[in-house]
Amino acid sequence: MKKSLIALAVLAASGASFAQSSVTLYGVADFWVGSTSTTDAAGVKLSQTVQNGGGYNGNRWGLRGVEDLGGGLKAKFQFESGFTIDDGNVANGATMFGRQAYAGVEGDFGSVTAGRQYTSYDSLRGATNHAFDAGVAVTGSVWGFGVADYAGRTNNTLRYDSPTMGGVSGSLSYGLGENKTATVNASSQTSLHVKFAMGPILAGVGYQAEKVAAVTTKYTLIAGSYDLGVVKLNAGFNKADNTVLQDSEVQLGVSAPIGANAAVGFGYATADSETAAGADNGKRSGIVLTGYYDLSKRTRAYAATNNTTTKNAAGATTAKTATTLAVGVRHSF
Amino acid sequence: MKKSLIALAVLAASGASFAQSSVTLYGVADFWVGSTSTTDAAGVKLSQTVQNGGGYNGNRWGLRGVEDLGGGLKAKFQFESGFTIDDGNVANGATMFGRQAYAGVEGDFGSVTAGRQYTSYDSLRGATNHAFDAGVAVTGSVWGFGVADYAGRTNNTLRYDSPTMGGVSGSLSYGLGENKTATVNASSQTSLHVKFAMGPILAGVGYQAEKVAAVTTKYTLIAGSYDLGVVKLNAGFNKADNTVLQDSEVQLGVSAPIGANAAVGFGYATADSETAAGADNGKRSGIVLTGYYDLSKRTRAYAATNNTTTKNAAGATTAKTATTLAVGVRHSF
Amino acid sequence: MKKSLIALAVLAASGASFAQSSVTLYGVADFWVGSTSTTDAAGVKLSQTVQNGGGYNGNRWGLRGVEDLGGGLKAKFQFESGFTIDDGNVANGATMFGRQAYAGVEGDFGSVTAGRQYTSYDSLRGATNHAFDAGVAVTGSVWGFGVADYAGRTNNTLRYDSPTMGGVSGSLSYGLGENKTATVNASSQTSLHVKFAMGPILAGVGYQAEKVAAVTTKYTLIAGSYDLGVVKLNAGFNKADNTVLQDSEVQLGVSAPIGANAAVGFGYATADSETAAGADNGKRSGIVLTGYYDLSKRTRAYAATNNTTTKNAAGATTAKTATTLAVGVRHSF
Repeated sequence: MKKSLIALAVLAASGASFAQSSVTLYGVADFWVGSTSTTDAAGVKLSQTVQNGGGYNGNRWGLRGVEDLGGGLKAKFQFESGFTIDDGNVANGATMFGRQAYAGVEGDFGSVTAGRQYTSYDSLRGATNHAFDAGVAVTGSVWGFGVADYAGRTNNTLRYDSPTMGGVSGSLSYGLGENKTATVNASSQTSLHVKFAMGPILAGVGYQAEKVAAVTTKYTLIAGSYDLGVVKLNAGFNKADNTVLQDSEVQLGVSAPIGANAAVGFGYATADSETAAGADNGKRSGIVLTGYYDLSKRTRAYAATNNTTTKNAAGATTAKTATTLAVGVRHSF
Repeated sequence: MKKSLIALAVLAASGASFAQSSVTLYGVADFWVGSTSTTDAAGVKLSQTVQNGGGYNGNRWGLRGVEDLGGGLKAKFQFESGFTIDDGNVANGATMFGRQAYAGVEGDFGSVTAGRQYTSYDSLRGATNHAFDAGVAVTGSVWGFGVADYAGRTNNTLRYDSPTMGGVSGSLSYGLGENKTATVNASSQTSLHVKFAMGPILAGVGYQAEKVAAVTTKYTLIAGSYDLGVVKLNAGFNKADNTVLQDSEVQLGVSAPIGANAAVGFGYATADSETAAGADNGKRSGIVLTGYYDLSKRTRAYAATNNTTTKNAAGATTAKTATTLAVGVRHSF
Repeated sequence: MKKSLIALAVLAASGASFAQSSVTLYGVADFWVGSTSTTDAAGVKLSQTVQNGGGYNGNRWGLRGVEDLGGGLKAKFQFESGFTIDDGNVANGATMFGRQAYAGVEGDFGSVTAGRQYTSYDSLRGATNHAFDAGVAVTGSVWGFGVADYAGRTNNTLRYDSPTMGGVSGSLSYGLGENKTATVNASSQTSLHVKFAMGPILAGVGYQAEKVAAVTTKYTLIAGSYDLGVVKLNAGFNKADNTVLQDSEVQLGVSAPIGANAAVGFGYATADSETAAGADNGKRSGIVLTGYYDLSKRTRAYAATNNTTTKNAAGATTAKTATTLAVGVRHSF
């Protein structure tokens, strides 16, 4: 007992306890072991055993805090650093807080934040991706065919999230390129979503326009999920187009709980790419099957396999297939 | 009550409480939205809207701790990492703990520290800069004209800070270049200050000599502040010279509290550069107007505008003017 | 008592205590001041005063946690970042969590971890190195002559550590190169140790094979220590060989406690290198003398000097001698 009191006294005296109460240190440790296998355009197959990470959620550590300013107003911040657990390197293009680095205020009016952060489009897509939006889901890889996939996070970004009224909420984010020159306007990333979420239903539309010099690439998403209890369904339809290409993209998913601590999920995604003139630019599709078992609230064991197949446009040399098999553990702290 | 005891037991059992009591995790989240505008030597103006950070204090996170060793002796350390909140990158030349990385001991004799740390000159200058020494203050930009501004932090540095006696204290730091070769001596940064601080008065002199091979650049500062209650005045006079150039630099500032939670400040700085032979090398001057309102002890809203104007030496092509307008929030944790 | 309860309540209310209880933030701050001196192959001597770090233990900060999953099973993780306290840069080849980045589970069966981690060979060697395995020990420098020294940490690595039975335990780690191509197999690092530790005795054998394309470098270690109370002895014999060179390496050490808070240690190491054909490839040997005094459980003052001498093979130009003198402090948190 005395020891505890001394410890307490130390905490109180040092000010550390209060300092710590204003910031939460958190993270994810996720590793898996398995194999990757690719077949290139010439039909040559390459398989190997790997130890990787982020099969379920990306490895990260971060700092976040919320301060109550009174009158319903709160200040908040979040700095989040992604890394690869297999070699210890910073992820996200070696950007320290490449996952998130923002601060802002929230109140009855909603939330306003500034910094490097998720786009509004991303927030809808992440919530409606198949296979628990896990790292092994194939949507990113498949929808990245043809028109490159959208930027999930943007720099120099202002974002507003509305409060929810009758299940409806909206979000708008705008990334300032800050690269204006005497002859070229600044780049920008405009992103928004409107969604309806009530009980088992989530449905929404998202839009993102990424402008670089005179070229703008647009992403338009209609997506949702429906939780029937025995299974949860999700679906998304995306249109990605710029002045060169236009892709029609679909994803479908179904997941089913097995008791209170486990679930299995299946996902499918496809992307059909055409030139602006309407000529075939190839097609990619993929499937993923994954399941998890929660060893505790913070620790999840998982297994997954996925496969993507690419039907190239004439003359293209993209790899034909890519397959991953993974067994891993994700631990949150 | 029971819950608290369980919480204690968890803390005690995990050992985390003791670990945490020996280190404090802290930081700053500071963002602003506004505009930057420059006019180049040819008179071409470029303005754009930006979302930036550090308008008040640089974004950072850090670890620090103090351990009482008994007999008045304390061990201490501080590792501090600066970053840009708008894109999540490490600041200070991508140096991880580029703001500070040192350890040392302190006691009745003062403080001795070793590592990457602020120079003694910097400590006086930071305490006497105009406009609350905020990021929007113009001293750094203005005094950086002509002779490049001093190094605020140096590597491989030993620093001694004396105790305060009768309001007088001193500090000496020495950075070891550690780059000696068979033919060239190591670089070094020698820095010191002596200051008097009592009641409303702060006055001091600072000196820094930065030696690289055979060239030494010297900075000599006389600076102080006087808090009259209704306003606080500050002033600084700096001489920067090397074998090529010599600059005469002045800064003045005034700030006034508005009630208990707000203040406004105005600052002015100028730098007059000459060649060693006494020929005109141009001139830069700047002003800043800033105000803040404290939403809480840890969260400050601020607004600021600054402007610098450069009168180039004949033939030089430095931008003529630079203007910033910023509205932001600084949150400490 | 009341104050304690309030402190507790604050901790409990903020939620931070629980967040923090699942992760421990720890580190080392170690700096020294002294001199380094080298004499190159031509006999030219270069000495300089330096402020460095890691004389005793490498500077680091890290996050680690253990979660009890019930039934004797535990989940665990550790992310550890090394850095240089004299300039604030990330160490280990600028790899963020370059010291360690792994997660895993442990139970009655032992421990299984995945990620970037110490090799099994390293764990035996670190436990039997001379001069407290401190940074100033010369084994790494001496044994790095000829065949390059082993990799202490490997990426994409699976590691198993057995439980201890009758004082005997074993460890096996395998690093997956993950760089297989159509024509070249993946690199790999296979590492193991078996050791016996009981009372004052530690003895073990370690082996590590580092395969890159068709070339494999092997390290075979027999090492141990014996604590006689008044002195502790340690010794290690290492064989390093690949297809080009083969080195015979020895290290010896003795350390003696001086009261409860201090100790002195002496270490010696030598490496004799030959070509695969048996021709002389030179020799390096070194000595180190170090002592420490514990100012507290967490803060250690130390002094050390070491010297290595290289007898080159004909025509080689490696520096002949290197000497370090250091006085420093290592603080743990």
